[in-house]
Amino acid sequence: MSVETYLEAHFDAALDDLKAYAAIPSVSTDPAFIDGIDKASLFLAERLTRAGFDNVERLETGGHPAVYGEILSDPALPTILVYGHYDVQPPDPLEKWLTPPFEPTLRDDRLYARGASDDKGPLLIPVLVAEAYLKTEGRLPVNLKLLVEGEEESGSPHFEATLEAYRAKFDCDLVVSADGAMWRADRPSMTVASRGNVALEVTVTGASKDLHSGRHGGSAPNPIAALAALIASLHGPDGRVTVDGFHDGTLPPDPKILAAIGAARFDAAAYYRDIGIADAPIVDGDSLLVRQWLEPTLEFNGISGGYQGRGTKTVIPASASVKITCRLVAGQKPRAVIDAIERHLTARLPTGFSIAFDSDGPGSEAFAIDPDLPALGIAEDILGELLGEKPLRVAMGATVPIGSAFSRVLGRPAIFFSFATSDEDYHAPNEFFRLSSFRTGMKAWARLLKRLGA
Amino acid sequence: MSVETYLEAHFDAALDDLKAYAAIPSVSTDPAFIDGIDKASLFLAERLTRAGFDNVERLETGGHPAVYGEILSDPALPTILVYGHYDVQPPDPLEKWLTPPFEPTLRDDRLYARGASDDKGPLLIPVLVAEAYLKTEGRLPVNLKLLVEGEEESGSPHFEATLEAYRAKFDCDLVVSADGAMWRADRPSMTVASRGNVALEVTVTGASKDLHSGRHGGSAPNPIAALAALIASLHGPDGRVTVDGFHDGTLPPDPKILAAIGAARFDAAAYYRDIGIADAPIVDGDSLLVRQWLEPTLEFNGISGGYQGRGTKTVIPASASVKITCRLVAGQKPRAVIDAIERHLTARLPTGFSIAFDSDGPGSEAFAIDPDLPALGIAEDILGELLGEKPLRVAMGATVPIGSAFSRVLGRPAIFFSFATSDEDYHAPNEFFRLSSFRTGMKAWARLLKRLGA
Repeated sequence: MSVETYLEAHFDAALDDLKAYAAIPSVSTDPAFIDGIDKASLFLAERLTRAGFDNVERLETGGHPAVYGEILSDPALPTILVYGHYDVQPPDPLEKWLTPPFEPTLRDDRLYARGASDDKGPLLIPVLVAEAYLKTEGRLPVNLKLLVEGEEESGSPHFEATLEAYRAKFDCDLVVSADGAMWRADRPSMTVASRGNVALEVTVTGASKDLHSGRHGGSAPNPIAALAALIASLHGPDGRVTVDGFHDGTLPPDPKILAAIGAARFDAAAYYRDIGIADAPIVDGDSLLVRQWLEPTLEFNGISGGYQGRGTKTVIPASASVKITCRLVAGQKPRAVIDAIERHLTARLPTGFSIAFDSDGPGSEAFAIDPDLPALGIAEDILGELLGEKPLRVAMGATVPIGSAFSRVLGRPAIFFSFATSDEDYHAPNEFFRLSSFRTGMKAWARLLKRLGA
Repeated sequence: MSVETYLEAHFDAALDDLKAYAAIPSVSTDPAFIDGIDKASLFLAERLTRAGFDNVERLETGGHPAVYGEILSDPALPTILVYGHYDVQPPDPLEKWLTPPFEPTLRDDRLYARGASDDKGPLLIPVLVAEAYLKTEGRLPVNLKLLVEGEEESGSPHFEATLEAYRAKFDCDLVVSADGAMWRADRPSMTVASRGNVALEVTVTGASKDLHSGRHGGSAPNPIAALAALIASLHGPDGRVTVDGFHDGTLPPDPKILAAIGAARFDAAAYYRDIGIADAPIVDGDSLLVRQWLEPTLEFNGISGGYQGRGTKTVIPASASVKITCRLVAGQKPRAVIDAIERHLTARLPTGFSIAFDSDGPGSEAFAIDPDLPALGIAEDILGELLGEKPLRVAMGATVPIGSAFSRVLGRPAIFFSFATSDEDYHAPNEFFRLSSFRTGMKAWARLLKRLGA
């Protein structure tokens, strides 16, 4: 039986594996889910062992453990290090899920669950493919190492140090990431660059306690007003970031990606319709893609302060906070970006307030792949065969913090070979993974390992 | 036994009454507390009956019931209608309470509980005084009617209609409000004016669902950014409201109150120190009091949108909201103020967003008492005797929505005779009521009823 036939014959069992894995609430950003982290890492280690991986272990990282396993076939064959993560985004707002986020549910040939698309489904694929090789051919066409971290959704704060600590263990010829989604459901793509990321929470405080807004209104400092003015100072009327020093070191974009943007014929009006907006703020599709792929951002992810319940409570709150993340382009340094924002806000703080900053991890730089890497061509060929169309080379607005880490620490290139699709709501309610992608992904990984070993 | 001696002798029982009353979570602004509303109104009705009130009933209002009772002594005596409320502010943030908000606790000669100061303690006083007159003298020196509403903390949305509906029942010569706090703990005061109030919640919506801030950052509309810019547009650099039409109809302040402000020698630096602010935004005490008492405000009471948990979640939220309340001065119309704000915000809404408004009740106009009213002089004399100092005539930054309603509907004047003090954290965690105020208040009400009847 061929590997691809074996995988097709065992698809139901593979789906059961994915359901069991996605049922585990392995949210890494919230300490309330620490049990889920433990269970998911254990589940994965056991599944690797059952698949035939050797030296399976949970690695100490200083944060949530990473899971590692390897199948070393022959020192003469190339060694591939597969990357993925077992942690998931928080599931809230819970009330917007049609079925509970950690009760995986099939609807319309899709599996709905938090983490199904990011990254539990895509990561399970190479595990299943390796198992299929062992069951059918008795060996793998490459040496395979698998490294699965538990802090990707928290910005991978211990990832680079983990690479350093286990550098010899992770030695390889090429990294293949099972994380990082395809750009569009209707057109195959290979991601060759991604933006970096930094996170910062800003808290503005006025009085030492909540005050009655009748008695104190007009005289006591209102931190919601102060925070709003600070937020409003961060972008210009054109939507670009106005922070002095924010763009320092920015490199011009790769011309090949600009060419891909031209080839993509991106429909801005359709994009805004898709996300539920009738009146497009940006009308030119090329400009829109440049903004998404090649320009840095400063986005507000959450804001809170004062009374949050129904109806009215007449308080002037003591403090108000905003959560910020920035996407970085090549050349920007995460720490310098945070420093620039902190300087900008501190300089504009009105009298009567204090300000505090809490940066969530060190952040990560942007990343770009060598366009002439042979593995990139092999991967593109396979996608062309299976999906009927040569993939576009695209940049990714989102961040895969590991991108630049592998080249910096291990000195090895990384390609993205994920079968998640960016419309699968993986940071929103009702995340899903297409079963068709699960099937195609298994075929594609089977071919990828074969041709990389050839 | 004199009435005052009786009250002193039964103080422990009075305190037990207050503890039992304040233990009932009668929050009117949140439907989750509907049981507490029911229990508190029933408790009060039963206590009135036990005190000797006649015709005690819970009145239909269209919202939470009002509680009514009367003791009619002699048609030749004047009739006093006492006003108060049995509902309380929401208790959150719960984690900031040293003891639970609905477990009344004695510390340092104070009773700590949500509602102890606003308005359960001050309202219980005239009930206890009426009972003391019946027990000692067998009759009251006036005809007494008591009207206690259950929606004051929600802006008294049904109060004026209730006055209309029961106009004959509430017929009286004078209204005395047991609600409305004394200005300072260290100096007696009589409130002769109060600001009005309107409430409005504003929600700005971008995309139809939360989006990944990596993939969509830079292109999708961010409602936190849009809301912040709208908020920042509502005040000028001097802190004054910039909304066109907001100040329409505003009347100049009463010169007697301006004179009282001069006499108060208000220490702005001490005020800011008291609320925990080192660096005073307003340095002149007179200007500060003018802002608190005599100018309209537009304050932000709560803001929310996007991820509220710990750590980071990389979303662009679908929407963000802010809760606004305005304090109004004489001449401003609540509906016109709301309309002006809605026009201002709608006109400034950027492309790609929608905006929705939710106004919480009709609001209430500002209020002022006739400075020559004889009852005002009587009340001032009694405070002078008991507190050793002639009270200041002050304005109130906060709102007692009933103020203007009584004069409009019943055509009768109202004075404020409350023994709450504005430092008693009645819209914040750890609300308390001074036992010394509870004692003094009983003496004062005993004398007030006697002299109003003379």
